[in-house]
Amino acid sequence: MKAVTLPDDVVNPDAKGRIILVVLDGVGGLPHPEHGRTELETARTPNLDRLAAESSLGRHLPVEVGITPGSGPGHLSLFGYDPTRFVVGRGALSALGVGFELEKGDVAVRLNLATLDAEGRVLDRRAGRPSDAEAREVVDRLREGIQLRDEGVRFFLLPEKEHRVVLVLRGSGLEAEVQDTDPQATGVPPLPPEALSPGSRRTAQVLEDLVGQARAILAGEAQINGILARGFALYEGFPSLRDRFGLRGAAHARYPMYRGVARLVGMDVPGVPNSDEEAVALLEENAGAFDFHFIHMKAPDSRGEDGDFDGKVAAIEEADGWIARIRALEPDALVVTGDHSTPATLRAHSWHPVPLLIHSRWSRPSAKRFHEGTCRTGDLGVIRGREIMSLALAHAGRLQKFGA
Amino acid sequence: MKAVTLPDDVVNPDAKGRIILVVLDGVGGLPHPEHGRTELETARTPNLDRLAAESSLGRHLPVEVGITPGSGPGHLSLFGYDPTRFVVGRGALSALGVGFELEKGDVAVRLNLATLDAEGRVLDRRAGRPSDAEAREVVDRLREGIQLRDEGVRFFLLPEKEHRVVLVLRGSGLEAEVQDTDPQATGVPPLPPEALSPGSRRTAQVLEDLVGQARAILAGEAQINGILARGFALYEGFPSLRDRFGLRGAAHARYPMYRGVARLVGMDVPGVPNSDEEAVALLEENAGAFDFHFIHMKAPDSRGEDGDFDGKVAAIEEADGWIARIRALEPDALVVTGDHSTPATLRAHSWHPVPLLIHSRWSRPSAKRFHEGTCRTGDLGVIRGREIMSLALAHAGRLQKFGA
Repeated sequence: MKAVTLPDDVVNPDAKGRIILVVLDGVGGLPHPEHGRTELETARTPNLDRLAAESSLGRHLPVEVGITPGSGPGHLSLFGYDPTRFVVGRGALSALGVGFELEKGDVAVRLNLATLDAEGRVLDRRAGRPSDAEAREVVDRLREGIQLRDEGVRFFLLPEKEHRVVLVLRGSGLEAEVQDTDPQATGVPPLPPEALSPGSRRTAQVLEDLVGQARAILAGEAQINGILARGFALYEGFPSLRDRFGLRGAAHARYPMYRGVARLVGMDVPGVPNSDEEAVALLEENAGAFDFHFIHMKAPDSRGEDGDFDGKVAAIEEADGWIARIRALEPDALVVTGDHSTPATLRAHSWHPVPLLIHSRWSRPSAKRFHEGTCRTGDLGVIRGREIMSLALAHAGRLQKFGA
Repeated sequence: MKAVTLPDDVVNPDAKGRIILVVLDGVGGLPHPEHGRTELETARTPNLDRLAAESSLGRHLPVEVGITPGSGPGHLSLFGYDPTRFVVGRGALSALGVGFELEKGDVAVRLNLATLDAEGRVLDRRAGRPSDAEAREVVDRLREGIQLRDEGVRFFLLPEKEHRVVLVLRGSGLEAEVQDTDPQATGVPPLPPEALSPGSRRTAQVLEDLVGQARAILAGEAQINGILARGFALYEGFPSLRDRFGLRGAAHARYPMYRGVARLVGMDVPGVPNSDEEAVALLEENAGAFDFHFIHMKAPDSRGEDGDFDGKVAAIEEADGWIARIRALEPDALVVTGDHSTPATLRAHSWHPVPLLIHSRWSRPSAKRFHEGTCRTGDLGVIRGREIMSLALAHAGRLQKFGA
């Protein structure tokens, strides 16, 4: 499997071309059972159509043939990182999802708030699915009450949703090969946090300490009185966009997960938009200060997951409305695509190839619309998502010849 | 990264099918800004069109998505060699470019003729860009005057262009991990040729000796009185077309670079043509004596690099004129493609997929013209350049079943 997308020495360190990547989350779709057109084929998209007529079209596979990506791998791929090689642990993804800024060397762990019986056996692995507010209150108590014995380690407790909490441990030399304490069953006690490598002993000891203190603090509670841990992940840091491609990158995304994945690869986050319009405004304000802009529009994916075909069509039409303002910034390469398909008929992310458009002076247009059908016969063919960055760099004049 | 293009044991050693590979250098293009047609789409190519109507069409990426190849990697790829794995050092490519026959174990070095001041500091890294004649005269004096102290090493000095000279060292056990002596700056003295590995000490010592003698010989000169060295490359030899594919190959190319790359993979060079017509005549004369013929036509690339759209169209039309004679030789597989695209609008090599045609009894035709548009929807899809050889061998009946 190809892990590295560019041969050595092809990035031109002196190049200045600017790139904008517009991600219409989950934009790819499937035919409507009645009229047979996909969401993109149904939508009225005059701006995307005008752009398509001057662009190279094609499709990308976010990971590999048949593989459905989560949001993390889908975006890493769009940023030029093979998601099968640059793996973000579930704990780390959860931390990103709640907007936490992971540092290199952090260990992230997914916790469940749980119900234990008097003998300490698991009664309910999800503590009866508490409300977010109930969970937040418990987490606040734990945060205040727990004082780790190992003073070289700091901990961060981040409520995610209902019973799900993320724990981040920060300290030098922590490793993450620790056995899950979640027994994945009821009627048995939690497992001990056993270190599976000598270097992970400190992490295991800290976790044992933390879980013990949590049980003491929650001893009087009937519902939330225990903690189960799984998915220990060491965040080792990724090489940055600047190191790999010579790009100063900026992310404009309303939801924390996408800002988080962008931060993983060294992008700046100039601001936190509360709407797509604010994201576009942030892009406009910062256009000249960065080489690479990533702007994220979530609605097509959300409506796709809802199974709301017409809602996804409307979300695409709304996104189309921003294209003219983005295009007016005159980037040297403008990429429009999704991080995966989210067909409304499937109500979920899917493995289908994703429509892809690259606009630059060096495009080879082939159609006057942007959708699954036109992209199927476009000049770019079917590429891997991680290869889009190579194309964006090439179209922006940022790559030099390979070999003489 | 896929380095090997064929599984073991599929080459049939007893097969006799003949292959001709016609390289229209830089043939791929981009739309003309006024009429929107590429060079190939504009050209009148009756012979290629007739051929296309009986051929499988497709496109190839010389290296990887977004990567623009130099001529060396572009041709290695067409010969079935992954250019990211079979790397030709700059020094070696320069030696090939001036027609020098590298032998396995040779160390090639790129030299600059330079101007040094009285204290030995670099005044001009290019010695005021001397004419080719001036440079040749200096090189002749050095060739005659230098007598290496290490009698086990022979040296070859080959003028390239203006201040650029190639040095080849030949002797047993030479290695090439030697630091450049070119400081890439003026006002400072050249760096010593430091060995970066124990095995490279002899090479470093020979270079120090040679540069010292050169300075003594040129001591009285004001302009060309020093030598800077960079790009030390050991030529380790490539497995041959015969070893890998069972092919006796012949190259018919007017320019030394292309004959040189062909020699790297073990092709013979039956003659040195002075025109495309002479190249075709050499192909005709030698048709029966080889299994694989490579014929190279340079003009489309040259006109593309000039930015001369109409000139490139004319060059393609001229090349089209030779197709009938080549086809009359009735090879079992006839491949027509380029080593890369050279759009006249870009005035340079590019990363765009290159039109590809394979004619044989086993083709699946899909269009009656040969250009970017028809090739986009052809039967061969988009393949890597290094996979073309597999297809040529298959179409010529030289591959057997993989597995029982």
